[in-house]
Formats: sequence, structure tokens, C-alpha cells
Amino acid sequence: MIDNHLQQGNELGIDPRRIVWRRVLDLNERALRSVIVGLGGKPHGVPRESGFDITAASELMAILCLSTDLMDLKERVGRIIIGYTYDNRVVKVGHLGVAGSVAVLLKDAIKPNLVQTLEGVPAFVHGGPFANIAHGCNSIQATRHGLKLADYFVTEAGFGAELGAEKFFDIKCRMAGLRPDAVVLVASVRALKMHGGVQKSDLSRENVDALNSGLPNLEKHIENLKSFGVPVVVAVNRFPTDSREELDAVMERCEALGASFSLSEVWAKGGQGGIDLAEKVVEACKKSNGFRFLYDAQASPREKIEAIAKGLYGAGDVQYTDAAEKDLASIHDLGLDHLLVCMAKTQASISDDPAKVGRPDGFTLTVREVRISAGAGFMVPITGSIMTMPGLPKKPAALDIDIDAEGRITGLF
Amino acid sequence: MIDNHLQQGNELGIDPRRIVWRRVLDLNERALRSVIVGLGGKPHGVPRESGFDITAASELMAILCLSTDLMDLKERVGRIIIGYTYDNRVVKVGHLGVAGSVAVLLKDAIKPNLVQTLEGVPAFVHGGPFANIAHGCNSIQATRHGLKLADYFVTEAGFGAELGAEKFFDIKCRMAGLRPDAVVLVASVRALKMHGGVQKSDLSRENVDALNSGLPNLEKHIENLKSFGVPVVVAVNRFPTDSREELDAVMERCEALGASFSLSEVWAKGGQGGIDLAEKVVEACKKSNGFRFLYDAQASPREKIEAIAKGLYGAGDVQYTDAAEKDLASIHDLGLDHLLVCMAKTQASISDDPAKVGRPDGFTLTVREVRISAGAGFMVPITGSIMTMPGLPKKPAALDIDIDAEGRITGLF
Amino acid sequence: MIDNHLQQGNELGIDPRRIVWRRVLDLNERALRSVIVGLGGKPHGVPRESGFDITAASELMAILCLSTDLMDLKERVGRIIIGYTYDNRVVKVGHLGVAGSVAVLLKDAIKPNLVQTLEGVPAFVHGGPFANIAHGCNSIQATRHGLKLADYFVTEAGFGAELGAEKFFDIKCRMAGLRPDAVVLVASVRALKMHGGVQKSDLSRENVDALNSGLPNLEKHIENLKSFGVPVVVAVNRFPTDSREELDAVMERCEALGASFSLSEVWAKGGQGGIDLAEKVVEACKKSNGFRFLYDAQASPREKIEAIAKGLYGAGDVQYTDAAEKDLASIHDLGLDHLLVCMAKTQASISDDPAKVGRPDGFTLTVREVRISAGAGFMVPITGSIMTMPGLPKKPAALDIDIDAEGRITGLF
Amino acid sequence: MIDNHLQQGNELGIDPRRIVWRRVLDLNERALRSVIVGLGGKPHGVPRESGFDITAASELMAILCLSTDLMDLKERVGRIIIGYTYDNRVVKVGHLGVAGSVAVLLKDAIKPNLVQTLEGVPAFVHGGPFANIAHGCNSIQATRHGLKLADYFVTEAGFGAELGAEKFFDIKCRMAGLRPDAVVLVASVRALKMHGGVQKSDLSRENVDALNSGLPNLEKHIENLKSFGVPVVVAVNRFPTDSREELDAVMERCEALGASFSLSEVWAKGGQGGIDLAEKVVEACKKSNGFRFLYDAQASPREKIEAIAKGLYGAGDVQYTDAAEKDLASIHDLGLDHLLVCMAKTQASISDDPAKVGRPDGFTLTVREVRISAGAGFMVPITGSIMTMPGLPKKPAALDIDIDAEGRITGLF
Repeated sequence: MIDNHLQQGNELGIDPRRIVWRRVLDLNERALRSVIVGLGGKPHGVPRESGFDITAASELMAILCLSTDLMDLKERVGRIIIGYTYDNRVVKVGHLGVAGSVAVLLKDAIKPNLVQTLEGVPAFVHGGPFANIAHGCNSIQATRHGLKLADYFVTEAGFGAELGAEKFFDIKCRMAGLRPDAVVLVASVRALKMHGGVQKSDLSRENVDALNSGLPNLEKHIENLKSFGVPVVVAVNRFPTDSREELDAVMERCEALGASFSLSEVWAKGGQGGIDLAEKVVEACKKSNGFRFLYDAQASPREKIEAIAKGLYGAGDVQYTDAAEKDLASIHDLGLDHLLVCMAKTQASISDDPAKVGRPDGFTLTVREVRISAGAGFMVPITGSIMTMPGLPKKPAALDIDIDAEGRITGLF
Repeated sequence: MIDNHLQQGNELGIDPRRIVWRRVLDLNERALRSVIVGLGGKPHGVPRESGFDITAASELMAILCLSTDLMDLKERVGRIIIGYTYDNRVVKVGHLGVAGSVAVLLKDAIKPNLVQTLEGVPAFVHGGPFANIAHGCNSIQATRHGLKLADYFVTEAGFGAELGAEKFFDIKCRMAGLRPDAVVLVASVRALKMHGGVQKSDLSRENVDALNSGLPNLEKHIENLKSFGVPVVVAVNRFPTDSREELDAVMERCEALGASFSLSEVWAKGGQGGIDLAEKVVEACKKSNGFRFLYDAQASPREKIEAIAKGLYGAGDVQYTDAAEKDLASIHDLGLDHLLVCMAKTQASISDDPAKVGRPDGFTLTVREVRISAGAGFMVPITGSIMTMPGLPKKPAALDIDIDAEGRITGLF
Repeated sequence: MIDNHLQQGNELGIDPRRIVWRRVLDLNERALRSVIVGLGGKPHGVPRESGFDITAASELMAILCLSTDLMDLKERVGRIIIGYTYDNRVVKVGHLGVAGSVAVLLKDAIKPNLVQTLEGVPAFVHGGPFANIAHGCNSIQATRHGLKLADYFVTEAGFGAELGAEKFFDIKCRMAGLRPDAVVLVASVRALKMHGGVQKSDLSRENVDALNSGLPNLEKHIENLKSFGVPVVVAVNRFPTDSREELDAVMERCEALGASFSLSEVWAKGGQGGIDLAEKVVEACKKSNGFRFLYDAQASPREKIEAIAKGLYGAGDVQYTDAAEKDLASIHDLGLDHLLVCMAKTQASISDDPAKVGRPDGFTLTVREVRISAGAGFMVPITGSIMTMPGLPKKPAALDIDIDAEGRITGLF
Repeated sequence: MIDNHLQQGNELGIDPRRIVWRRVLDLNERALRSVIVGLGGKPHGVPRESGFDITAASELMAILCLSTDLMDLKERVGRIIIGYTYDNRVVKVGHLGVAGSVAVLLKDAIKPNLVQTLEGVPAFVHGGPFANIAHGCNSIQATRHGLKLADYFVTEAGFGAELGAEKFFDIKCRMAGLRPDAVVLVASVRALKMHGGVQKSDLSRENVDALNSGLPNLEKHIENLKSFGVPVVVAVNRFPTDSREELDAVMERCEALGASFSLSEVWAKGGQGGIDLAEKVVEACKKSNGFRFLYDAQASPREKIEAIAKGLYGAGDVQYTDAAEKDLASIHDLGLDHLLVCMAKTQASISDDPAKVGRPDGFTLTVREVRISAGAGFMVPITGSIMTMPGLPKKPAALDIDIDAEGRITGLF
């Protein structure tokens, strides 16, 4: 619709160089990250630089997951900023007049789909917004349906807790009016040893000292989660290489910090391996609960970013590049200071530097740019390089996959 | 897979400038007809010119429709030519090693889907290869299933009979070993008046003279179809503006030419309106049948093209541009002279000139280029400009479509 | 200036897809034939497809050579068509307001430069418009100066006489008011044998039969030149491989056709080798002279093209592609039917088919497109593929060129 | 030669995505900053992203100015890095085999050209390397000729002294074995008031307080220059708006700092206005001179950068982006640690932040990338955004320029 608008006279005066909306495809295709479209002369579009993202990276995916119903989705779609005019006015999907059509296309997609696990447990798999440039958790519709259908409803929030949990609380719960009863913080001995400085290749060897060096990372996450006012259960995913002594060390620290501890053996034993965890969660849900958001939505963008960076990540300071400063000024001019904040940050560290393991402290977080997802309802401060279109590896799976005359497929795994 | 092969070291030595395989999308999107992909530096692919077609224009669609089973499809996919190496060797999907993967992706798509008309008549809707650069009729699988399930099975062959019927007979029937019992030639008084020189805006007015001037077009089609050795039934689609005298004129001419005639009123009366036609078809199927192909597959490409151009279209001569000559030489060098011929020609005239109505004769048909669909099993002589990616109009339907809170969709029609 | 106009608000509404003006550089650079410029975002221009030609192919070169003085040049520059607006109005250099600046840049270039040959003969070397898309002879200013400074002034007209002489007469002489006294038609035994069907590798062998078969080519040129009303002297460039019998055959035919004949040995003997030719030319200049143009400038473009194609080339018919028809319609709408005609045709044959040697007759000449050089004052019917930017060979001279500490350059030849 | 190498088989295996050599043109043309070349298919080059710079930004310009003679130039040209191969080997002009040809093209350009001022003073104008990405002073050849021809020879070093003088001393003097006798530091009351915080629009008003606030900037420059061991003369360019009190304040401070002071009135009075300055310079040249470089060429790149940043600019720390770190690692791997350092920094501040006026101190200088000019003999740490191709303004001078029939040019100024 955007390129057709350009082609058919460009009534809105959209500047082809300032279109921020990208196309999406559900392919891993690096060659489409940056493209030039509209070549070949007047009948074939207007030449411009553009690119493709993977579908999960589209603002439409975030909107689908954050809409409370189809009418809400339609309104949000209308608010998506797709670019700017030659004279610097903002252009929204609403200006193009196609919010209704988009809603029609998504009218079935917005309905949560109920599936079951191998053990017959009902589950919703619905929506997959990227956890870097979006909020990384499933749809409000699915969560609401789940809450109506079951006594306990568990939902996942992707990446580290400083990203996934924070966005779940501050963005999804706020928009949906949800109030979580407890939080399960997933950890592993291996990951904690990594945060204690062990190389990936050495993680299988017992190393209690390194584990102890890495535990401040877990501590920080527990502190962070408690600051939201909800009871915390730490679920340690058991690996065959974990030693008794290592597991005990984690358990002791959790208890010292006032968090429940459960050893999850779901990977090895299925549902049976999670019964203790389930009981701990039921228990936690009975505890007193003072759920609160980390920041006030009406605060300034800088205040909101700082609240997250200092309050949750442990940053000493936040610095903004010139580009980020310009973005914030533009957000202000557009009257969008009220948007929530959806951080784009590495998941390899609580800081914005993937090399900083453990519990980094007092660092300067750098905001490089701030993108606007006005339809989803948040701004996205970018603190590192974000890849929104994956590529295939040296030997893609497609090289091994085959099917024979009887329909037997091989090479999938 | 092609771009990833380039990116990962290009073991085959594919020349990025000579990749003939284009991407497809099921969108009307003129801005994607010609694009440059792989921009942004080394991690983001190899820069090259490419483009998108609509899915129906993909050789994969033609293959899906011409494959007798999944293993045949897999073999055909492996034979698709996707480009050429720096040292001018051909590169096929088989060289990329992904024919098996493609077959897996299409394993369900190749199964015909049975639907029903509003009156409950079973029908297959399966496959839609473009009638310009492909053969324009549905899948062999669907036809075979239909023949097993019903006493009479009717299949459509798109565009004018010199295109649709010829390709159905010479390509699909030959590949599938089918032997049609009768052919229904669809005509209309309005179209015949157009072939008699009447402007589109004047077609609603009675004009028996113009109709008579246009009838040689119908004659030529009847002659053409009879040359394949099958009985012909002419079905005239009745329009409210047709006069009795006009309809009579057509009927008389058909009878004079030895073709059955039936007035089809299906549009106005549904199945009831087609009973006469059905009876005429049943009758025709009982007639003696000497079905034969127009050309021998082993003839040279030029002989095959000439057989169609002179034998069916009425051309006096065929001329080849320099580019077409080069293409034919390349087809010969690749050992592909045996490929069948799938003409790409305007449907507005029996000739290659859209302005020539009626029954043009003795014209020179110009072949501009000859494309190779080695997987589908044909070469495509191009005799005009072929559009394989449509664009949206000035006022796309999307501008009118909407949905309300009750889920009522408006603006679709 | 064009791209800056687009960047600074595009007041004229120039459609970036319809800019026909290309950049020029004096480099052999195939990689610049087709480029996309203006990439990188708003501060860096407007993305569009463009390309570079070699300087000689610029309309400015043709204008420089056809201008009678600097003010004429300035006016012509102002009339150059550089593109079209979104609403299909023509955009000229005059609209951009820079005809004066261009004239300032060319104020010295328009002055003819006088040089001398190795034997001290004065000569002008001034201007080099491509003989395919332009008129291929030197500047009017140089010719006028030469005529004032010497008793006899000879000027070269590039390519075969059906191109070079025709353009010299019909374009340059018409624009400058020149009236040539005689014409020297340069021929060679080798070239005539080629027109008699001999392969290039066999040209050194005596072959009087082949020469006789090729002589109709020379006859046609003599007839053509005589039709302009000027006396003709045939100068045969002597090659060491020419036999006496071959030279005699040419001489006899020339005399039979009423053209003077002179054997030019300038290559071997310098000025001495041209004395006979000079005397023949002096003689010819005394003959009666009825110089006339081939066509009337006020005739329609089709009439003018036909006059050249049938009257001079020997074509039986002229056909126009759809694109050429559109171009002629556009020329008419722009009020430019009065432009002279500057054919772009192969020099390998008098026809438009390089393979047709000798004196082809009755062929159909195909006009593929018609470009406009409104500043130069002609339209250019394109009858083949025209290359306006050369490329470097497999082993460019640059690989061999060097210089040493004493400044001695090697590898130039 | 690079694109032709790609086209003709790419024997060296150059990766088209990793060619760092850009084309140059002497035009202000923003639309050529980023282009894609080699489009149109196999005969027309290899598609790749590239761009044009202005000629002064070419490494060839820096080489021309730093070469001690033509053979030195040829060797330097051979060392230019133009890109990298698919397997990450460096590709130099020497590998392309055209250093000799380039030397031939530049054989005349390298010769200094002697001109004269309006008062008849001889002067060399020879070479113009950009002062941002190159060293910004004229050619070694010109300086050497000047030193031979005159008793005193003055040369200019562009931008602020922390850039121009440093590069002149550390790069040009080091390469040419020059030993300067004295340095003239040009200052103005207006610029010093700007460094004292006055807005540009208020500079004409007397403001001794602001001047005093800005004088630490001058102090820093004097200190910097003295650290090179040469006597310093401060030349204050007198403006009509300078007050007596302001000029006195500058003079007093200079004397307090041990630098000669001279009021230059050359702008108003021509050579007469510079006699005092000339005498001060003659005097300074007699003083004792301990000329030394700021850093050792054999130090590590980081040490050299730090020597300049801390020792001259007053930075407290230097930080390197990830890209810069990668560049330094690559420089090390290429064995190029010995290259001199040619900083690319804003001239608006002694720091890398244009907003920091006066004498900033203790700031962190950020190196964003480090480019290699291996032929010129330096690496270029980039500390801001560097523009190497200018664009035309809203109203280019070309719009006003004209010429009349008498050859009178108007609109140049």
C-alpha cells in the first residue's frame, strides 16, 4: 500500500527516503536485509532503499500480542508510523486508509489457538514478538483466555529476566491490567558458572568456586524481581553434569535471599520432574503480593529509560548518542513521550556489554537510537546492534532433508 | 538457498549476474518487479539484480501441475535451471542439493483438494500456472482423480483456444497420457462482434453484420480444434444483450462447420441453464475420436514453434530476434531441444499482435526470446511483453475494506 | 544541477524515473553504464537509476560542433531536454536556469584549435561527436575558420558515406549554410572484397571475382553522393596486398560511373602520395555543382526517415516498433517534427543488418526508438544496439605502461 | 582498473563487497556519495556498492603531496590498499599492476607550479589534500623548491593548529626531513570571543570579559606549539570591529606566555600590513630551536593516538568503538603499525566535540574507526562524521552565472 501510494501520485507527499516501515517475510534471508525496490522505470514503482525483516520483528506482531480485542488492534494499526512526508509530517497507517483491511487480514490470527503438550496439558501458542525490538511474550488474548480456563496459568517471558520479566510486567501487564501472583526465575548451574568466568567448553566440569563467583548474577535477578513486589521461585534446570555440591550452593543462596528454590527435572522426567516446582509455585501464589510497575508511564522518556537502566541493570549512568538525542526530540515533538519503554539490549549480560558477566555495576549504558512503535505503544531504545532478519548457516538443514516415494521424510534433525 | 550459496563461498561458481530464478510472493506488488538484493556489505549477502513474480508465475507452480506424483515432482524440481556459472555451465536445483527439501515443502500442496459448487457439484480447484509463461491448466493429479471419481470430467484450459487448448493437448495430455473425448469451445456474441471490429462500448447494441465479420475467428478456432481430432461443442455464453438474430447467426455457422452448438445459460439459471450443453457434450463424447498432437516432441524447436504458429495461429512466417536465436542455440547446447513448446502470446488476437482481430492470416510472428522451464518440461517462446507481477490499481480494494466490532466485514465487493 | 534540483525541493516536479540526461566522463568504464545514484538517505540525494556515457556521446558535444557561435550554443543548451515532470511536461536545461553557466564553461572549448600535421600542413582538430548517436563531424566553427584561411578546405565525415556524408550534408551544411564543392569517397580494395563475400582472414589474397562482386557497394555510394548534386572523386587507399588487376578493376568501374578515380598512397609516401588526389579534387571543384539536400526539413519525421532509408540505403520499407511509434507521437506532441534526422545505424552494411554486405536491396529497416537531441537540433532514430560507454579489454594498456626515474615512458604502444 | 579486473575474470579474487577504494570527481555532487555500479547484466560490470569523493579526498592527492619524487610516488601508489580478497588477503594497486600507469598520469601533476600574488610575490600553489581525512598541507616538492629559491619560505597548514601544525610537523616534516625555524599561529579577537562563549551574531560587539574567557584556547595552542620546540609568533588578523582594549589583552597574554605578538593588517593594507609580522618572524627564526616530533613513529598505534589526544588535545582518555578495535587489529595483522597517525577531528574544538569551546580538559576522545592510507603512509583515526563529497546549496552559483555575446561573464560573485 505504501509503494502503491507513491506510484499513484503520492497524495500524502511521503518522502521515499524516509519510509521507516519495512517488509516482512518468514524466511531466514540475509540477502533481503537491504534492498532497493521500484527499479525499471515509471511503470514499475518508485526507486527507494528498503529491506525485509522476519515476521516476528514486525510491529504488527507486537500489536497482535498487545491488543485486547480486534477493535483495539484496528486502532493500534492505524497509529503505526510508516514514514514522514517531504515537509516532515508523520505518516501513519491510518493516513493510508488501510487499518480496516489490515484488521480483516488479522481477524483470525488474533484468536488464540489452544494446543496440548505431549502429556496432554492444554497450552496456548499464540504470537511471537521478537524479544529484542519488541516485548517478547505471547498475546494478551491468550493469557486472558488461559486465566479463565485454568486455576493456574503460566506464561513465558523471553530472554534474561531484566528484559523478559521487565517487559512482561511494565508493558503487557500494564496494558492488559494483569496482576501476576508469582514469578518463576529459571536458572542453571552452567549459566551461573559462565557468569563466574568459565569458558563454554569447560562448563561440564565441576567448579564450585566459579559458581560462587557467578551467583551475584542470580542475586541481582532475584532482587530485581522482588522489586516488582511479587514472590519469586527459582527453578534450576538440572543438567546431567551438575554436581550435588553445585546444586546445594545455589539452593543455599536462594534461601538466604528469601526466594523459594526448586530443582526442575522436566527435561529428563517430563511432568513428574516438575511436581516440586509446581508445588512451590502454588505456595508462592498464596504469599502476600505487592505488585507494582518499575516506572510511571507519564514520566519522561529519559526518566523511564533511567529507571530501567539504573534501577534494574545496575548502570551508573545513561548516555545518548547524537542520533538518540534527535530521536527523543522527535518523539517529544510527535507528542509520544507517554509511550512505554521497550529496551533492545543484549541478553548475554545484565549490562549493554555482552562481555560483562556476573553482576556488573556502575557502567554507562549507551542508547544509540530510539525507534518508535506507536501502534504497539512503546518506544525502543537501541543499545547494541539488533538483527531483525536472520541468515542461513554454512550448511542449512535443507541440504539434508529428503522424502521418498512412501512419503518418509529424512534429515529433519 | 541460491543467495546463501553465494554467501557461503559459492562453491559452484554461480555468476550472480546470470541467475535466472526469481523470487515469488502472492502479492500484487509492482515495486518488487526489479530489485537489487544483498546490499549492506559482506555479512549481508552478495549484491545482485533480481526480482519478484507472483506465485502463479513460478516454474514450481507449473511443475506442481505437471507432476504425475511426488517423486516425479522431486525429479522435475532437480532439473530446474536457476542460473549459470562464471564459466557458463548450467546450474540446476539439483546442484544446490535441495530438490528433496522442496519436495517436502510441497508434499501436501501436490494433493488435489476437492471442493463443491454452490449446487453441490464436486470440483477440484488445484494449481494455477499462469497461462502466459506457463501452460495455464490445473494439475494432472486433479484430473486423474477426477477421471476416477466421475463418469464425465471437465477441465478448463485458460485463455483463447489457440493457447489454452493447444497447451492442454500438447503439454498436459502428452505428459499425463490423457486422451480427451470432446472439447467445449466457449464463445460469446459480444466477443465475436469485437472480432468484427466493434468497440467495447458498442457491444451491447445488436449488430449482425459485425457479428458475421467476426465469425471467421470462431471458424478458425473450430478448425484448429478439429485438427486435434476431437469432437467440438461450441458453448455460447448468453448475455442479456444478445439478440435472437445474433444467436441464430452463430448457431447456423457452427452447424455449417460441423460443430455442435449449445446456448449456455448457466450464468443466469445455474445448472439448469447448462443441461442442453451437458447433453451435447455427452453426445460428442460418443463420436469417433482421432486425438493426435499438433507436433512431434522430437522435432526441432523451430519446427515445433512453426507447427503452432503456422498450423494454428495462421502465421505466414516466424522470425526470431537475435536474442531468441541465441536462446535457441543455448537450448540446443544444453541438450534441451526435446522440451515441449509453451507459447507466450497475447490472448487478444490469434496472432501476436493484439490489434489484429478476426482471423488474421499470413502475418509474421516474432519470437523475442525463448525461456527455459526445464523442470516443467517446456521452453517458452516469448512473442510480446509478459507481465509476471501485477500491480495495484489507483484505488485498491483495501481502501474500502473494513470490519466492525461484531466482525462484520464491509467493502469486499 | 538536476540532482540538486531534486534534492532542494524539486520545484519543477521532475520525475526522477524519467530523467533522460546521463552523466559523461572521458573514461572507458563499463561499470558506470548503469548505476543507481542518490543512495544513503535524505541528505544524500534522491535514489534513481542513471548512467554514464563517454564525453563524445553527450548532446553537449554535438551542440558544441553545430553551434555557429557562443550565443547560438547558449540557446541550444537551453533547449536540451533533460527529462519529464510527474505530469508529463518536458524539462529543459533552460528550465533549470543554467544555460548561461554551461556556456561559460564552454566559452573556450568552442574556439577551434589549429594544429599542424607532421609535414607542417595546418589542420583543425575540434570536436568529436559520436558518429552513431550524433552527426560525427567536426565543428562548424572550425570549418568556417578553415574556409577563411585556405583556398581548399577538406573535412572528414565519419563512418560509411551513407551515414557520414549524409549527416554532413543534411545536418551540418544545412545548419551552417555550407555548400561543398566536391566530395572525396574513400574506398579500398580490401573493403570491396569484403563486400564481395571474402572473410577478413583472406583479404590479402588477390581475388578479382570477389572484388567485382563487391563493387556494387561502391556504385551505390557513388550514386548516393551524386544524388546530392556534388562531383565525386573516389580515393582508393592503397594497401601493399592490392594487385594491379584489382586496382584497375576499381578504376574502370569508377570511370564507367562518371566519378574521378585517384590512387592514394599517402599512408606510404606522405603528402607526395596524395598529389594526384589533390589535383583530381581541384579539378572536381571546378565542375558544375547542383548541391541539394536529401529531404525537406519541414517534411514529417516519417517522410524524412523514409527519404534516407529508401533513397540512400536502398530499403524497401521502414517499420517502427511500438516504442518508436510512441517516441514519434511524443516528438509530434512536443512540436519537434521539424528536427532534422540523425540516423543511428551500423556502419558494417548500408542496411541496418551488419550481415548484409554488398548492395542490399528491398530490405525492411526497423526503427526501434527515436531519441530527441533538441539542443543539437535533430532526432535520432535507433536501428540497432548503440554503445555509448566503452569498456576496457581483457589486457588494458595500463598494465604495460611504466615510467622510470629519468622520466622515460614505456609500454604506450 | 578495479572494476575491469572484476569483469575480466577477477584473477586476484577481489571481494566486490570489500573494495575500499572510491572513485573521485572534482564536482560537488551529493547524489554520487553512495551509488551502485555495474548494473545491467554480465557485459556491463559486476554489481557493487561504491561511491564518489571529491578529488582532494583521494589518497592519491595525499600521496602527490607527500612524495619526494616521481619514483617515490610510484612506490607509494603501489602500496595503496584498494580492497580485500574473498579469503581476506589485502589487495594493493601494485597487485593490479598499474602503479606505473598512475605515475605516468601524474608525472606532470607532481611538478610544483609557481604563481605570484597580486603584489608580485612568488608563491607555490600545489596540492590540496583534505585536512580532515588527510594531512592538509601542500606538497613536499613545492616546499623543497621554495626553500631553494628564497631566504624565507612560509607554508600553510590547514585547520586549527592542533590539526594542521601537528600533521605538518609529525607527517610532512618527518617524511621530508624538514626542520621548521619558526611557527606563525594565526588568531583573531572574534574567534577568541567565540571560544569565550559569545554567539556568532554578537562577535562584533566589544567584550573583553568574553575574550579573557576565550584566551585559554590560545594559551593551549601556544603551549602545544612550544612543545614541538619551535619559536612561536602569534599573528592576530585584525578586523574592523576589534577594539584597542581587546587587542591589548591578547598582546599582553602572548607576551606573558613567551610568544611574540604581531598585529596583521594584510587584509586591509596588503604587504605593508604584514611588515611587522615579517620582522617578528625573521627575529623568531634566529632564536634557538629544539624541533622534535610529538611521538615516535615506532610506537604502537594506540600510543601514537594517545600522544596526540592527551598530549595535544587535552583528552583524559581515549576510547575505541568495536569497529575501531577491529580496524587496529587488522592494521596490526597487515604489519602496518608503523604508519604515522593522521587524525580526523572537528576543527570547531580542540576536543572531538564541536560544542566544547575554550580549553576543554579531561574529556574522553572516541575513535570510531581507523582507515588505512598505506600509500600516503598514515592511518586515519576517525573521531566524528567526515564528509568527503560536498553537495550544492539551495541556490547554487550556477543559477546566476551568464555570458553575453561580447563574452562578458556575470554572476560569478
